[in-house]
Amino acid sequence: MQSFASDNNSGACPEALAAIAAASAGHAIGYGEDPWTARAAALFKEEYGASAEVFFVLNGTGSNVLALSLASGPGQAVLCSDCAHVRVDETGAPEASVGCQVLPLRSREGKVLPEALEEALGVLGSVHQAQPSCLSLSQPTELGTLYSLEELRELAGIAHRAGLALHLDGARIANAAAALGLPLGAFGTEAGVDLLSFGGMKNGLAFGEVLLVLRPELARRAPYLRKARLQLASKMRFVSCQYEAYLSDGLWRRNALAANASAARLARAVEGEPGIELAYPVRTNALFVRMPREAIESLRATRFFYDWEGGLVRWMTSFDTGDSEVDAFAAEARAAARASARPR
Amino acid sequence: MQSFASDNNSGACPEALAAIAAASAGHAIGYGEDPWTARAAALFKEEYGASAEVFFVLNGTGSNVLALSLASGPGQAVLCSDCAHVRVDETGAPEASVGCQVLPLRSREGKVLPEALEEALGVLGSVHQAQPSCLSLSQPTELGTLYSLEELRELAGIAHRAGLALHLDGARIANAAAALGLPLGAFGTEAGVDLLSFGGMKNGLAFGEVLLVLRPELARRAPYLRKARLQLASKMRFVSCQYEAYLSDGLWRRNALAANASAARLARAVEGEPGIELAYPVRTNALFVRMPREAIESLRATRFFYDWEGGLVRWMTSFDTGDSEVDAFAAEARAAARASARPR
Amino acid sequence: MQSFASDNNSGACPEALAAIAAASAGHAIGYGEDPWTARAAALFKEEYGASAEVFFVLNGTGSNVLALSLASGPGQAVLCSDCAHVRVDETGAPEASVGCQVLPLRSREGKVLPEALEEALGVLGSVHQAQPSCLSLSQPTELGTLYSLEELRELAGIAHRAGLALHLDGARIANAAAALGLPLGAFGTEAGVDLLSFGGMKNGLAFGEVLLVLRPELARRAPYLRKARLQLASKMRFVSCQYEAYLSDGLWRRNALAANASAARLARAVEGEPGIELAYPVRTNALFVRMPREAIESLRATRFFYDWEGGLVRWMTSFDTGDSEVDAFAAEARAAARASARPR
Amino acid sequence: MQSFASDNNSGACPEALAAIAAASAGHAIGYGEDPWTARAAALFKEEYGASAEVFFVLNGTGSNVLALSLASGPGQAVLCSDCAHVRVDETGAPEASVGCQVLPLRSREGKVLPEALEEALGVLGSVHQAQPSCLSLSQPTELGTLYSLEELRELAGIAHRAGLALHLDGARIANAAAALGLPLGAFGTEAGVDLLSFGGMKNGLAFGEVLLVLRPELARRAPYLRKARLQLASKMRFVSCQYEAYLSDGLWRRNALAANASAARLARAVEGEPGIELAYPVRTNALFVRMPREAIESLRATRFFYDWEGGLVRWMTSFDTGDSEVDAFAAEARAAARASARPR
Repeated sequence: MQSFASDNNSGACPEALAAIAAASAGHAIGYGEDPWTARAAALFKEEYGASAEVFFVLNGTGSNVLALSLASGPGQAVLCSDCAHVRVDETGAPEASVGCQVLPLRSREGKVLPEALEEALGVLGSVHQAQPSCLSLSQPTELGTLYSLEELRELAGIAHRAGLALHLDGARIANAAAALGLPLGAFGTEAGVDLLSFGGMKNGLAFGEVLLVLRPELARRAPYLRKARLQLASKMRFVSCQYEAYLSDGLWRRNALAANASAARLARAVEGEPGIELAYPVRTNALFVRMPREAIESLRATRFFYDWEGGLVRWMTSFDTGDSEVDAFAAEARAAARASARPR
Repeated sequence: MQSFASDNNSGACPEALAAIAAASAGHAIGYGEDPWTARAAALFKEEYGASAEVFFVLNGTGSNVLALSLASGPGQAVLCSDCAHVRVDETGAPEASVGCQVLPLRSREGKVLPEALEEALGVLGSVHQAQPSCLSLSQPTELGTLYSLEELRELAGIAHRAGLALHLDGARIANAAAALGLPLGAFGTEAGVDLLSFGGMKNGLAFGEVLLVLRPELARRAPYLRKARLQLASKMRFVSCQYEAYLSDGLWRRNALAANASAARLARAVEGEPGIELAYPVRTNALFVRMPREAIESLRATRFFYDWEGGLVRWMTSFDTGDSEVDAFAAEARAAARASARPR
Repeated sequence: MQSFASDNNSGACPEALAAIAAASAGHAIGYGEDPWTARAAALFKEEYGASAEVFFVLNGTGSNVLALSLASGPGQAVLCSDCAHVRVDETGAPEASVGCQVLPLRSREGKVLPEALEEALGVLGSVHQAQPSCLSLSQPTELGTLYSLEELRELAGIAHRAGLALHLDGARIANAAAALGLPLGAFGTEAGVDLLSFGGMKNGLAFGEVLLVLRPELARRAPYLRKARLQLASKMRFVSCQYEAYLSDGLWRRNALAANASAARLARAVEGEPGIELAYPVRTNALFVRMPREAIESLRATRFFYDWEGGLVRWMTSFDTGDSEVDAFAAEARAAARASARPR
Repeated sequence: MQSFASDNNSGACPEALAAIAAASAGHAIGYGEDPWTARAAALFKEEYGASAEVFFVLNGTGSNVLALSLASGPGQAVLCSDCAHVRVDETGAPEASVGCQVLPLRSREGKVLPEALEEALGVLGSVHQAQPSCLSLSQPTELGTLYSLEELRELAGIAHRAGLALHLDGARIANAAAALGLPLGAFGTEAGVDLLSFGGMKNGLAFGEVLLVLRPELARRAPYLRKARLQLASKMRFVSCQYEAYLSDGLWRRNALAANASAARLARAVEGEPGIELAYPVRTNALFVRMPREAIESLRATRFFYDWEGGLVRWMTSFDTGDSEVDAFAAEARAAARASARPR
């Protein structure tokens, strides 16, 4: 039985597994001095430009924290949405490692409001407040919604004019690119992004993520901080080989389109059902759902998924979610909703 | 052509690759709530006792730093050998993450001298010096040598009586256990070890390591610090499945014995050759060699390996080092030594 | 012309200056091994109990950060009011030094709401969220309001039952004690306080503050962390001698009553004036005032004071604020309000 | 009875006390926006150049740590003498606050050897080692010896060519300047110094030190880090007023010459006495003495002083050490030496 709890509940796609097996052949120098890493880095540079610096890392929190290490520090602040992963779901890792404050900005449907950003910049120059040095956005947001390129550029403009770097938490960047019909590279410098946490694990890879540093002066300390931040893989080829496969033959897009399509199918299947309400537009592979508490617990008796803020629950689809599984889950959800509505 | 630069230059053993492929089947809850992780943890508890707490992590530096996070902090000091990995090869990660001092103790053949430890404890109680809170030893040492169980217990006794925890950096613990003919569990509480960084990557696994917390009160904050220290794998099964295989059917010992045997073969093949001198006894899978600089550079023209302190070079063997490769490398080394000795 | 911007705009009271001059006589061992420090510590123990540990420190932020260092760390969170000094006015010093998150709780008139605290404790046990380990309250609050002893005990009870320590930021604790007619010791263990940042600089002392550790097990690392947190005075007698004077002959209460009385006089003098509105009850020595922007700027042309959140301004009185200065300032404020109301 | 344990065992000189008393008059804006701070900063700029940035701080460790915060960080290393205060006497404060490694260089008579510095720079460019970013020297050294300007410039040149900043721990900089017959400003940019921890407390001031940032680009984050590092005084005038006095009318030199002269007098009085040996040349106000253990303990029964590494003891003189006290102490020391030499 498949899980709708998170896209990290799936295993790895066959292409990733094949890449791992193939990369195991023979000896290669460690810590990134291997041909798989060189080839994968070259593919990233094709997407993000020749001056992009590519750092394979170990997990998503590691990628985010390394990025913030390059753009913030003690006495400084990272600004982000009030529901940002770096703020609410990483056990305070940014504060613990970077020593910065991580301050929430008001958001709508997960997206930072430009006026909230402007307001937060009011402390610039005051010695009693941590100085904003980085704006961290998530694309897609933690609520599965999307910034348009215009929205990103507007926020980037405000940030850059005030001297802040723009970090994009792209744990599911492929889902965003697939949904918007854009190349991955669209979320690079032309969108104003300086640091991109590029994720693959939630879209079919087994382990390892990537930090792309798109503004060269921010990359100076990155090779050393990657190690100091516990993110340097000795057998790096086992990470980078997966990304070589991921950026080849459209694997990333194929996987992401499949996950997004499953979410859309699930949304269609429950929409209109009394007692089931979608809290946000379903743009990528996540649904945030309002249901009676009784229906939630009844459904959860057989299918694990997470509660979310505001009494919501989150359902997610993955690259390998099957149509029949979607239909079965939707039927279970509808049944639970109906049962809870019935007079007792 | 195989590498003698490091045991992390090898790929993964077939058992590890098979475990990864098998673990990819189906959906499973992330962050360690999966059956592979449960089974692998159970195997570790068989070795190290039921009260051992098992934390799968992402790499060796991560394992060390998480361990030191549990036993040290600001205003405190970790004591270790003057050639310890945590001090000289981790880009200051302990200081950066834990905020402790990492202070060197005099050593002989890589092993901390008890009298050096006693002396360093003289600062206990003085507010102007960081207070030693943890002794970190490496088994095998960074020079490939081994503490006997008695030596470990003596140092542990000194440490414990002064209130310090004992951390063992076991990046190559299997090589030690295989060399000494001991079970893995010998390096647990009965040897006085409180925190064991248990490595598998240098002995044939693809990625991921383990921190074993053997004194329960030290484990209280570990689940949260694992995440805050960027070491929590979302698809943890891809790490833990390898350790399930590793601890089954004697895989760890098989791999380690092979690597150790290759090192012994290499040592025998070069010993006695004028111009080649082994600086330390070869107990595990590392050789530290003194050769004329000209011979070193000549040999390195075709085979990459690392310089070491004191003008030495290090050669390492791996689980998959072939006998013929050993013989070929030895022949090359002897030839280089002879050529450099010839009058010009 | 006196300032109504902050109680730190005043100099030192004559008793503090006399103590400093007297303490300068002769040689004394540094770092707290002097008789002034011993006598001052004894006076604190009279107030807070024999098991209170007394740490003289250098400033208020230092006192707060040292306290939080004893009760929190990486992977943990300090909970506080959304307007707490440790969160909004210390340039992120807690995050930078302690590595914890500092998370805001909803408050009313500056006071943490018990239900907000209960709600924030919901994350206990989840590895993805920093674990609350300390509740930090301010008495008086940043808005000059006061917790009753019952309110403190209620919050302390919730905190303690969940395993959190209670830190009290008492930068103006004397103003609170004077206003409530309580001894200083009332804000100790009987109110549930574990760590008390005891301030004197805002009530007539020249420099130096005190951290009182009231739960002995929290004090174990304090002597070392005081130095590591840059708070150990070499000539400590120049700090402690002031506190010896402060706790003798009712100096703390005399100064605080004077400051509170001046604030009450100022409140009475402007109350009822159209265009001047007091946002919170005036319990200690701070007024938070709503005035037309034009009136604010007109008044500020001659008297410096700070803007506050929500469009308010803050006026503060000090131990040495004169009645005639209060009356003059009130007259200026009323005149500014009237002028701004006049049609132009 | 005067102490020869440390120059921080003396009180404050009359000029400092008078400055404090005078600075207490009237109200002034806090945090450095006061006329005393402006005047004192101007005096420092006269010495160190108009582009020098002046940061009054709370103590010597705070000054050092703030300096290192500006020039180092995680993944980086501060290099210093193996007996440097920042390494051995600050309870690991640099590691705890800055997150850098602090690595010892071989020294002679307390002075870093240029070849040791060159050697330590060999790790530049290796991702596995913390990257040296700052050289921290002490003038006078912890052994009371002095770098000549030429020696400083040589080390500064090596550091600068490799991209490191030069920090000078000048806790007793006045003693050095007085001994060398140089102005204070000699230890600024012309000596290659980028960051100068300028101390006054050990030369007659009551509290507070100064960080001078001499390379403007290093000063950018200093105002915020001073607060985040717990070093921002609210009533800053009480610190800065002392430095205004200190830099006026030659007070710093008068005090330092007196302390140095007392040390020279003490050295002359014990030199040649069998059983008393001066380990280093007495250049400033410290003597490092080798005596039989029995003589040490006998002398210490009435006069407190510190043991030092290598079995030495340290004696220090202060700005107010009296000639008769020197003579009395010397007589006691000689008597103790003689008594311990007598057959029993």
